[in-house]
Amino acid sequence: MALFRRRYTAPGAAPGTLSEGPAGAVVQVICHSFDLETWQRSEPTAVADVVALRDPKKTLWIEVQGLGDGSWVQELGAALGIHPLAVSDMHNVGQRPKVDPYDNGIFVVLRHLIARRDEPLEWQQVSMFLGGDFVLSVQEGPSEVLRPIEQRISEGRQLIRSNGPDYLLSCLIDAVVDAYFPILETWGVHLEWLEDQVLEGHHEGLLEQLYRTRRNLATLHRAALPMRSALDRMTQDDTLGFTSLTRLHLRDAADHANQVVDVDSSYRDLSTSLIDVHLSILGQRTNESMRLLTVIATVFILLTFFVGLYGMNFDTSQPWNMPELHSPYGYPLFLLFCFVVASTLMYVFYRLGWLGRHRGPN
Amino acid sequence: MALFRRRYTAPGAAPGTLSEGPAGAVVQVICHSFDLETWQRSEPTAVADVVALRDPKKTLWIEVQGLGDGSWVQELGAALGIHPLAVSDMHNVGQRPKVDPYDNGIFVVLRHLIARRDEPLEWQQVSMFLGGDFVLSVQEGPSEVLRPIEQRISEGRQLIRSNGPDYLLSCLIDAVVDAYFPILETWGVHLEWLEDQVLEGHHEGLLEQLYRTRRNLATLHRAALPMRSALDRMTQDDTLGFTSLTRLHLRDAADHANQVVDVDSSYRDLSTSLIDVHLSILGQRTNESMRLLTVIATVFILLTFFVGLYGMNFDTSQPWNMPELHSPYGYPLFLLFCFVVASTLMYVFYRLGWLGRHRGPN
Amino acid sequence: MALFRRRYTAPGAAPGTLSEGPAGAVVQVICHSFDLETWQRSEPTAVADVVALRDPKKTLWIEVQGLGDGSWVQELGAALGIHPLAVSDMHNVGQRPKVDPYDNGIFVVLRHLIARRDEPLEWQQVSMFLGGDFVLSVQEGPSEVLRPIEQRISEGRQLIRSNGPDYLLSCLIDAVVDAYFPILETWGVHLEWLEDQVLEGHHEGLLEQLYRTRRNLATLHRAALPMRSALDRMTQDDTLGFTSLTRLHLRDAADHANQVVDVDSSYRDLSTSLIDVHLSILGQRTNESMRLLTVIATVFILLTFFVGLYGMNFDTSQPWNMPELHSPYGYPLFLLFCFVVASTLMYVFYRLGWLGRHRGPN
Amino acid sequence: MALFRRRYTAPGAAPGTLSEGPAGAVVQVICHSFDLETWQRSEPTAVADVVALRDPKKTLWIEVQGLGDGSWVQELGAALGIHPLAVSDMHNVGQRPKVDPYDNGIFVVLRHLIARRDEPLEWQQVSMFLGGDFVLSVQEGPSEVLRPIEQRISEGRQLIRSNGPDYLLSCLIDAVVDAYFPILETWGVHLEWLEDQVLEGHHEGLLEQLYRTRRNLATLHRAALPMRSALDRMTQDDTLGFTSLTRLHLRDAADHANQVVDVDSSYRDLSTSLIDVHLSILGQRTNESMRLLTVIATVFILLTFFVGLYGMNFDTSQPWNMPELHSPYGYPLFLLFCFVVASTLMYVFYRLGWLGRHRGPN
Amino acid sequence: MALFRRRYTAPGAAPGTLSEGPAGAVVQVICHSFDLETWQRSEPTAVADVVALRDPKKTLWIEVQGLGDGSWVQELGAALGIHPLAVSDMHNVGQRPKVDPYDNGIFVVLRHLIARRDEPLEWQQVSMFLGGDFVLSVQEGPSEVLRPIEQRISEGRQLIRSNGPDYLLSCLIDAVVDAYFPILETWGVHLEWLEDQVLEGHHEGLLEQLYRTRRNLATLHRAALPMRSALDRMTQDDTLGFTSLTRLHLRDAADHANQVVDVDSSYRDLSTSLIDVHLSILGQRTNESMRLLTVIATVFILLTFFVGLYGMNFDTSQPWNMPELHSPYGYPLFLLFCFVVASTLMYVFYRLGWLGRHRGPN
Repeated sequence: MALFRRRYTAPGAAPGTLSEGPAGAVVQVICHSFDLETWQRSEPTAVADVVALRDPKKTLWIEVQGLGDGSWVQELGAALGIHPLAVSDMHNVGQRPKVDPYDNGIFVVLRHLIARRDEPLEWQQVSMFLGGDFVLSVQEGPSEVLRPIEQRISEGRQLIRSNGPDYLLSCLIDAVVDAYFPILETWGVHLEWLEDQVLEGHHEGLLEQLYRTRRNLATLHRAALPMRSALDRMTQDDTLGFTSLTRLHLRDAADHANQVVDVDSSYRDLSTSLIDVHLSILGQRTNESMRLLTVIATVFILLTFFVGLYGMNFDTSQPWNMPELHSPYGYPLFLLFCFVVASTLMYVFYRLGWLGRHRGPN
Repeated sequence: MALFRRRYTAPGAAPGTLSEGPAGAVVQVICHSFDLETWQRSEPTAVADVVALRDPKKTLWIEVQGLGDGSWVQELGAALGIHPLAVSDMHNVGQRPKVDPYDNGIFVVLRHLIARRDEPLEWQQVSMFLGGDFVLSVQEGPSEVLRPIEQRISEGRQLIRSNGPDYLLSCLIDAVVDAYFPILETWGVHLEWLEDQVLEGHHEGLLEQLYRTRRNLATLHRAALPMRSALDRMTQDDTLGFTSLTRLHLRDAADHANQVVDVDSSYRDLSTSLIDVHLSILGQRTNESMRLLTVIATVFILLTFFVGLYGMNFDTSQPWNMPELHSPYGYPLFLLFCFVVASTLMYVFYRLGWLGRHRGPN
Repeated sequence: MALFRRRYTAPGAAPGTLSEGPAGAVVQVICHSFDLETWQRSEPTAVADVVALRDPKKTLWIEVQGLGDGSWVQELGAALGIHPLAVSDMHNVGQRPKVDPYDNGIFVVLRHLIARRDEPLEWQQVSMFLGGDFVLSVQEGPSEVLRPIEQRISEGRQLIRSNGPDYLLSCLIDAVVDAYFPILETWGVHLEWLEDQVLEGHHEGLLEQLYRTRRNLATLHRAALPMRSALDRMTQDDTLGFTSLTRLHLRDAADHANQVVDVDSSYRDLSTSLIDVHLSILGQRTNESMRLLTVIATVFILLTFFVGLYGMNFDTSQPWNMPELHSPYGYPLFLLFCFVVASTLMYVFYRLGWLGRHRGPN
Repeated sequence: MALFRRRYTAPGAAPGTLSEGPAGAVVQVICHSFDLETWQRSEPTAVADVVALRDPKKTLWIEVQGLGDGSWVQELGAALGIHPLAVSDMHNVGQRPKVDPYDNGIFVVLRHLIARRDEPLEWQQVSMFLGGDFVLSVQEGPSEVLRPIEQRISEGRQLIRSNGPDYLLSCLIDAVVDAYFPILETWGVHLEWLEDQVLEGHHEGLLEQLYRTRRNLATLHRAALPMRSALDRMTQDDTLGFTSLTRLHLRDAADHANQVVDVDSSYRDLSTSLIDVHLSILGQRTNESMRLLTVIATVFILLTFFVGLYGMNFDTSQPWNMPELHSPYGYPLFLLFCFVVASTLMYVFYRLGWLGRHRGPN
Repeated sequence: MALFRRRYTAPGAAPGTLSEGPAGAVVQVICHSFDLETWQRSEPTAVADVVALRDPKKTLWIEVQGLGDGSWVQELGAALGIHPLAVSDMHNVGQRPKVDPYDNGIFVVLRHLIARRDEPLEWQQVSMFLGGDFVLSVQEGPSEVLRPIEQRISEGRQLIRSNGPDYLLSCLIDAVVDAYFPILETWGVHLEWLEDQVLEGHHEGLLEQLYRTRRNLATLHRAALPMRSALDRMTQDDTLGFTSLTRLHLRDAADHANQVVDVDSSYRDLSTSLIDVHLSILGQRTNESMRLLTVIATVFILLTFFVGLYGMNFDTSQPWNMPELHSPYGYPLFLLFCFVVASTLMYVFYRLGWLGRHRGPN
């Protein structure tokens, strides 16, 4: 996924203009019209069919999956009286999570995270508009994140059936927020595995993995932090006109968002610490192997000096000049001498802790 | 303990649903019903027994230890009129410490820290619900943290006996918060020991210990920071309806929470500094040992050059070609020369401070 | 572009004085006077011509490109009743993005970013003054950033034609803010390229590129952060007297500014991480090449010792003194021995992972 | 001084309980009862004597130095009507600096810093309770910090004599706050000395000193930051009922606390920078000495190669095989050659700046 | 200049006491009494002369340069009814920039920065007191910073002549704030020079210069940050009683202070980045020179092995023992062999990028 994913119109274009990027996924529209007793599911193919479903006594949930070329969203928005700025935010995905009150409704943008194994964390925009008698939800593409809400409606749960569109909105928000938890759990397990790897001293590609982890956690942070602000605002702002029941459930969702941010923060701290510890363990190990090599080289450089001594051409007929060269055991004794010198040095270095990892006081 | 410990329901599940994890610890329920004169302790086995204990003139403390499969908490919550969202937060442990006002009571979530020697810091959720005439406390498992409150009730202390459920709540909160101090004290001693280890230059596994310490302090921070916010809010929010006595005691508890955060922050700073200092001392020592080895190698490489000189096959019958080879004392003089060169070099390097730790101006 | 670009008057000069720097770009003035039906474009050459265009029933947009010696702006400001402090801020470019309400209008300063390939990010000041029936925009030099607005006016778009000067102001602001997105997109692509370079281990001038990237992102941050504050303030301040339509569009622009700051923050985090990772990969590679060299040197130092052994002048007529020298196959066997020793050592070092990158457990 | 110095009661103990640590210093009680004309100093030995001194027309300052086993403070608190929570905070030293309003008075906790040469910074708790006609000050042990106030009272200064207990309180606070300045001055001088040491390249134990300095500055920070908040609150909170004179003086004290925090922050930044610079200078010097050694070794390794060349046993009777060995000046010429090679190399390395510190372009 | 420059009285001294340091600079007093038509400049030598100049219809500016022993300021303050706390703050220089409202006036403390080439940034305190009909400005010593204001008065500029003391105060503040810009410009140029130095790889004393730069920028930050807060407060606080004209000009000054803080922040970020980049370039270069040396050493160690081979004493009468020693071209061929081996190795290392800076993929 590209680092910059905001779809934007040409600078200076009239606000509310849709961006002309490549066409998005195929548009699929599902409508649920329900009250406590009845429930009707339909897949309208024209905007007029959707509008026909509006009924002040019922709750209408219009679920749009996929953006296409934007015409569906645009027509639907116009038909439902949604402000063009909100409509363009639905289409120009990559908006910051936010809540924007309008005269005739509340517009919410969230991000739904998608974690695929060994791939960077992706996200899709989920926009919702709460009108008087309907909720419009728009997703970038097909996704399962709102499926459980459909199920709760179809199963006829009383709470969701009888509490109108604003309660439905809180349920949709809750579903998007709660979908962060399994991802956080996966990352928690992954971080623990990375922690073990680092502390056990493995390094096969670990730095890249740690970097990618931190980057993903930053992506998550960027999605979760403004989401928390938006939800906190929804909870505290009395002017938005939510029922007290809805506000309780929004507070619950805001609370979950708070936890997501919290856990993510601690993960990010952890991953930063891990990178530091990993680099220092790595550096230390390289240093230790260098030291071991240098120890060996130093010992043999010293021995080579002795070897060189007896390679000199001093006139050995003079009594003071290397008489040991004529000794019958000169060579074996010399070898013994070399062995003793090398052993002594190695022992000294061993005691200094220079031969291996963390064995001595140094 | 796993890094991610939040119990959560499937995303999209109806708010207030209990998570279906492995069943928690066995449920034990203890009830204390008391006023200034009387005190009655019971261990009811059915929810009806608990409800029967309610008496507007007395304070009822329902202490639940262990979550089981959640049915006890769920039934009890329903019987006491506790909102399902609060009930599910009691069961789905791993909630962020918080205070949530409801219409008919106040719901508080705190974390009780458990420190075991040489193990990561763990925590358990302690939830409390303050109703009109009762306090319900729910703990994840058996724990001693609220035992002293039981004792104060059983001993008939006037304050706790006569001041109703909201004062009892403040006492429970205070008990949980104060249990952080012994842990902080232990960590303080441990940090001072680590400090000595680092400054004395030990390193056996020190990096891992420092890392684990920082991680534990981060766990503590994650528990204490939202706890402080929650308590600050309880102290300042006039709408919660606490008596002035209770508010004084809550302010005291909030103050303690503030101190916990404070001390923890300074510990975390300290541990970060210690890691930096440790790594730099370690790096410096490795460098110094490398330098010592290089000094030795360099000296002997130089001597080997001289040794090699006299191993050359120049025609020594020519007067200018190494006449010293024929000298009767050539060899001993050469050895003396080597010794002088080596000593001089070592002295120079010693003066430069390259032979040991921190001895010279370099 | 110089690091410090603020044009300032001599300290202590009367507030409202214009700085006397080198004369800016040639001044070009374009006026658009329009209402829903009519549109008139002119390029007046005298201040009086501009003033003559004012008409309470129409919207007048005075576009000044280039500062010259400041006299144009000063005279125009005086003729339009703009406060001298605002006028001097238009001329003394390098002002912080801000919004300043005056008695008779609102003064806005923004920065327009200009990204040229392989050059540091530059910016130009765009100042706007909203009077009762006009908007004055002043740019440092010729620029295309406001061109799309001209086009929308000339095309007769209803919104911009009929909603008066404050809506026009919001369009101008929106155009400046939206011009940040293409730059952010370019930087996003560049960062991804840098990321690949770093993780693939390239280093040709990478550090300097990373440094320059971070510096440019800091420039962007310095422009965007106060812009966000200014726009947030415009959105929230009821006393500024904007129509609700304008405020909706300003909220949209503020939202975009928020996103710019957001994305920029994450870019800056990323670039910092990249620098860290780059340096550690670089350091590790240098260390690894040093280790490989040391391995080779160590092996040959060892072999040189053996070679030296047989170069010694021990009296080989003695039976214990290097009898192998007389062996007919002494030399080939010695070479074989050297080969075996070297191979064994290399194998050991290979198994220890010291010969290359990330191959063994070390 | 231990890192954790908070005296705490067993978790769950009734709020207001005194901790049972080792008994503190011997209790000394000094009372000053004064108004503009009269002044009476006494050292009562019983609580009743203290209470007898209360006189609504006079100001009573009860100065308690030393905590003993807490009974004095407890009895005194009870007799003066001080809330048990405040009393226990006086005894359980290690409280965070704070200001707590009670119904019948204001409770202030501050920390008095004690700097001893070459020892970690220590602090003592100074608690004050302002009642209707008295100020009670409690210190952990004998200290000179409030002595100047005694003197001002005894000297009959008009301001302190005639402005009642709340002005006295502001004087006591001011005395404690101002005692931070001489300590800051000492640390300033110490930091400048450390700065010189670091930049001149000394390192004898410097890292430990820098670490201890940073730790001490953190201790100071931990004392000063909450003190500032407490004083800011006292200054701004209208409900505390201070006279305008007292508030002016409290504002002055709050200002001083602000400065203490300010200076301490800049000191801490400086010490962090110094540690970084110190480590990098140290690392660079070690690297430079390593490079110098490597230069020497490399030169002699090269020379040893040439030396070895003429040690080979090629059949010199063949005309192409080292005819120079038979040259009468072969050896001196060879030495000259070696000298030339070594000099050239050293010159090249010198030009590259590899022989010393900061001499060349590298 | 010393790091700690606060003049303070003995802790516990009565608030309002003047510190007894070394006497400051000689006191020079200049008075300007003016209204729109008249202007009178005088240098009174007695406090009574100053007081005599007060005239409710005119604006009196009393400019004090130099503190002497403090008696001038003290007497003047008493005669003008300035609160002793403000008077002592004028004398006890080193106060934090602040604005303190008093009953009869407003007291402002700012810092005037003095930059001398190659010396640490210094600052002097500039205090101002705005009374009903006068402004008193007190500077530590002779300084040119307020000279332009004198000039504007003497030139009879209408604004400053006719708008009374509070406008005069705003002009004085503006003069002090604007004097930061030339310093910022100088530092900007210096930073750009440092940037070039760092990226071109120079290092002669660069670390110390970078450190000193960062330290100076921190000094600037410490002066500018509280100045900004003070000015922001003056702008926003309605109770201070400024005319709307003065408030406009104060807003301008606050805006400039904001920019100073902004620019300084970005400079500090830049200098921190530069230090990091400098250290890493330095470290990398040292590493590269070490590697080059090691490459040379390794090649010659290898060649020395071959040289040693032919120095061995194997019995060359045996056919398998080094027959090449008898070859007529053995020696030249050997030299050729050495040359080929060395060239090949150097080529390999060159391809690996180990011979220089940033040339290969490694």
